[in-house]
Amino acid sequence: MMVTKQEILEILENYDKDKLAIATVCSHSSLQIFDGARKEGFRTIGICINAPPKFYDAFPKAKPDEFFTVKDYKEIISKTDELARKNAIIIPHGSFVEYLGAANFNKLHLPTFGNRRVLEWESDRDMSRMWLEAAGIKMPRQIKNPEDIDSPMMVKYYGAKGGMGFFVVKNYSDFQKRINPAEKYTIQEFVLGTRYYMHYFYSPIKHEGYALSKGTLELLGIDRRVESNADEIFRIGSPTELAEAEIYPTFVVTGNLPLIVRESLLPRVFEMGEQVVEKSLELFGGMVGPFCLETVVTDTLELKVFEISARIVAGTNLFISGSPYADLVDEGLSTGRRIAREIKTARDMDLLSEVIS
Amino acid sequence: MMVTKQEILEILENYDKDKLAIATVCSHSSLQIFDGARKEGFRTIGICINAPPKFYDAFPKAKPDEFFTVKDYKEIISKTDELARKNAIIIPHGSFVEYLGAANFNKLHLPTFGNRRVLEWESDRDMSRMWLEAAGIKMPRQIKNPEDIDSPMMVKYYGAKGGMGFFVVKNYSDFQKRINPAEKYTIQEFVLGTRYYMHYFYSPIKHEGYALSKGTLELLGIDRRVESNADEIFRIGSPTELAEAEIYPTFVVTGNLPLIVRESLLPRVFEMGEQVVEKSLELFGGMVGPFCLETVVTDTLELKVFEISARIVAGTNLFISGSPYADLVDEGLSTGRRIAREIKTARDMDLLSEVIS
Amino acid sequence: MMVTKQEILEILENYDKDKLAIATVCSHSSLQIFDGARKEGFRTIGICINAPPKFYDAFPKAKPDEFFTVKDYKEIISKTDELARKNAIIIPHGSFVEYLGAANFNKLHLPTFGNRRVLEWESDRDMSRMWLEAAGIKMPRQIKNPEDIDSPMMVKYYGAKGGMGFFVVKNYSDFQKRINPAEKYTIQEFVLGTRYYMHYFYSPIKHEGYALSKGTLELLGIDRRVESNADEIFRIGSPTELAEAEIYPTFVVTGNLPLIVRESLLPRVFEMGEQVVEKSLELFGGMVGPFCLETVVTDTLELKVFEISARIVAGTNLFISGSPYADLVDEGLSTGRRIAREIKTARDMDLLSEVIS
Repeated sequence: MMVTKQEILEILENYDKDKLAIATVCSHSSLQIFDGARKEGFRTIGICINAPPKFYDAFPKAKPDEFFTVKDYKEIISKTDELARKNAIIIPHGSFVEYLGAANFNKLHLPTFGNRRVLEWESDRDMSRMWLEAAGIKMPRQIKNPEDIDSPMMVKYYGAKGGMGFFVVKNYSDFQKRINPAEKYTIQEFVLGTRYYMHYFYSPIKHEGYALSKGTLELLGIDRRVESNADEIFRIGSPTELAEAEIYPTFVVTGNLPLIVRESLLPRVFEMGEQVVEKSLELFGGMVGPFCLETVVTDTLELKVFEISARIVAGTNLFISGSPYADLVDEGLSTGRRIAREIKTARDMDLLSEVIS
Repeated sequence: MMVTKQEILEILENYDKDKLAIATVCSHSSLQIFDGARKEGFRTIGICINAPPKFYDAFPKAKPDEFFTVKDYKEIISKTDELARKNAIIIPHGSFVEYLGAANFNKLHLPTFGNRRVLEWESDRDMSRMWLEAAGIKMPRQIKNPEDIDSPMMVKYYGAKGGMGFFVVKNYSDFQKRINPAEKYTIQEFVLGTRYYMHYFYSPIKHEGYALSKGTLELLGIDRRVESNADEIFRIGSPTELAEAEIYPTFVVTGNLPLIVRESLLPRVFEMGEQVVEKSLELFGGMVGPFCLETVVTDTLELKVFEISARIVAGTNLFISGSPYADLVDEGLSTGRRIAREIKTARDMDLLSEVIS
Repeated sequence: MMVTKQEILEILENYDKDKLAIATVCSHSSLQIFDGARKEGFRTIGICINAPPKFYDAFPKAKPDEFFTVKDYKEIISKTDELARKNAIIIPHGSFVEYLGAANFNKLHLPTFGNRRVLEWESDRDMSRMWLEAAGIKMPRQIKNPEDIDSPMMVKYYGAKGGMGFFVVKNYSDFQKRINPAEKYTIQEFVLGTRYYMHYFYSPIKHEGYALSKGTLELLGIDRRVESNADEIFRIGSPTELAEAEIYPTFVVTGNLPLIVRESLLPRVFEMGEQVVEKSLELFGGMVGPFCLETVVTDTLELKVFEISARIVAGTNLFISGSPYADLVDEGLSTGRRIAREIKTARDMDLLSEVIS
């Protein structure tokens, strides 16, 4: 059963607030989470499987103070007491949730940064579309019947992560050739344009800044995902030419590169973030902390959102020492550090209940 | 009628030089202009339409000290006295000039950073080609008669901005199909290679550094424009394949990504900047401050320039906290800050007349 | 005849260790080498042909304290005494070795950073493959007989540098059409994926960090090479379409752009670096200092290495003020500075013999 906010607050009651520790799973965006927490004066705990990954030794500024070793992710569930005794606040990231499983994650009896209720809205493609469209966000057109495919469309399996399980089709026959009928999918328009992954941070407790009905909104960076093999496949042929050899573009995220967007689009970028947060406050009490709108900017300068991630995403790893946007908030600010700072401020203002769940 | 330098100097005469303010229109590259001005100790004024854009609230380091609200850009013309009483020096950027219109911009009775005379040379494609070629710069071959199109060519409408109104054709029949006969255009060779947008800064008053016949030249960064939909269209098909569906690559600038160029090309990069500045001194008294050469580097490592921008361009927005080039001039130096510093130095040396018009 | 380590140590014996100078050829990655050396307190010497390149004047932080002018690179050989009197330690980079020629480089009677013995292993494609495969690195499949070409393959001439002399073929007839039979070549599988150039630093004398059997390993950055015209050729057509007009993709490196890789791949990234260093210790006493593994990450998240560079590569020029990886080692650390720091540490610990040859 999902842990209640009340239960979490009771756990937190027993924490030594002066000795809070920031804990996360050793993957995804953990380097900046540990680095940022350390810079804000927190102890750090790296949760890892079997043995501490050696590569942290190469990054002294991001090596957690302590490794917390489990046999598998499920074991975290049974060791929450131990982590609670260490005053651990969990920072969830994409891999954390994925490895643990959404159901287990929601049972985790530990104070977790952000609002867990966002998970059900974000992880279900229908619900996230409902949320975003209700917020006034433009999304790629979605079609239900594959026979209606009459232009390039992106097919995504449910629960597909990191771009694995995405493919492009141009017509029904393409679709039939490539679909795995055993899997649930969505079909959406392939929006022509250029991709921008906008990294926001919503604070329910900060008052100076870009004000929302409650709290403030920041933009900490923008990246573009590097997708294998779609990004470089043109070097050997066009999709049509390659299809003959049954070589298809794939969209597995292998990394990220830094970008900025036209300054004249920033009013709309903020407006979009604002709309999404306001609607989240209405729907489920608000999404707290970092989130990402995954957008395409078309050649008419329209922004369409094809996905939302309601927690720290790996593209922010580029900006461990700041970005052209974060530096205008506070020089060298990473998303990892911003999270730690939010927890610190909440602790100092006795508002931790606003930022954890 | 175009405002004269003499008139501007008279306006400046009445300024309180210890209270100069940096003013620009709230768009394009205003964040770094305000941030840089603030870092150099200037007051900042953000000129905006109707109401201050809310997004500045999210960037405390780049929020202007004061907003100066007008109903439309033309109203700036009638409010120059008010801005003059605030000791405002205008920083023109691409959107500023575009929104105001070149004719109005030239009537602006306010001290403006840079030499306004560059505008006529830069905004007319024939004159800018004359200038660059006379400077010894290699440009893409231009053809007059569309019937001569025998290889990929880029067609650009006059006054096309931000890549809107550019298209590629391969032969005369392509051209006929796509041209709007009501518009004036140029046709130039599509140079195969990789694009580099070189951001220079020319100071007529600084003497230490890369010396020109008068003043010095700096390189503050390099970016590549992100163009929608040309940058990602290959994901669904080749231009020929897509043309059948009347889908064409478009070249609207939506953002920028950071780049560096082979170090062995730097001597030529500087030589090009030098040639362009020297010729500008000869033709119209010199282009002052930031400018950008928009180049293609071919696979024989030749640099061809397809356009010049004679003021701050948005690609420098990437480098709000420095670039791999700017950091070797002064750590963390942005183009916005470099402009403010130039004004400060000119003020302190009593040489403002050299850098404004 | 190749200079022996013993000879180098004798030269070093006469050096004034408190007045060591860092010297390199004025090209390739010299800006960061000089900047980094200056930051670590060393004098710097820029070796140049005929006259000092003017562009250093534009970069005060990276301008060498002294230029050492020669008529041609070969002249360096005859002037080693002069450089030795200046207590010069040579930092070899790609252009240095290329311009001087491997044979001449190995005769250079001057202390040189790194282990010269790596040169024969790195410059010969067969030997480097032997080294990497013996280390457990996965490489693109190589084929001997061009008649076996049955999928996209990359053909590289021996000694081809900076991507010049690379081309892609899809079958034997393509190959016949394009090969220059006078030149020696290799044929390897074109691995579909996204390219990542991983910049490592191996120190045989540092003990804190990612420990190897001897010394430690660091990751200082990742870039992607920008290749002309392959990176932008899709704008005018697919390879097949263009081949009809005898326009082919070319792979000449014109610059670099910054990237990061999925954090979950870092364990493998470090493991690869570790394997390559350990094998180098076994084969020829170890590769010292910066090296680069040039990899493709496939859509199954496999890393394949298509080349190794056993010295500082130009992609690190992006990170003159740090990278998302280097900043976690030491804020703002460039590879150039890391080299200087290694020499300084070695000097202070009386271990110079471990890092020079």
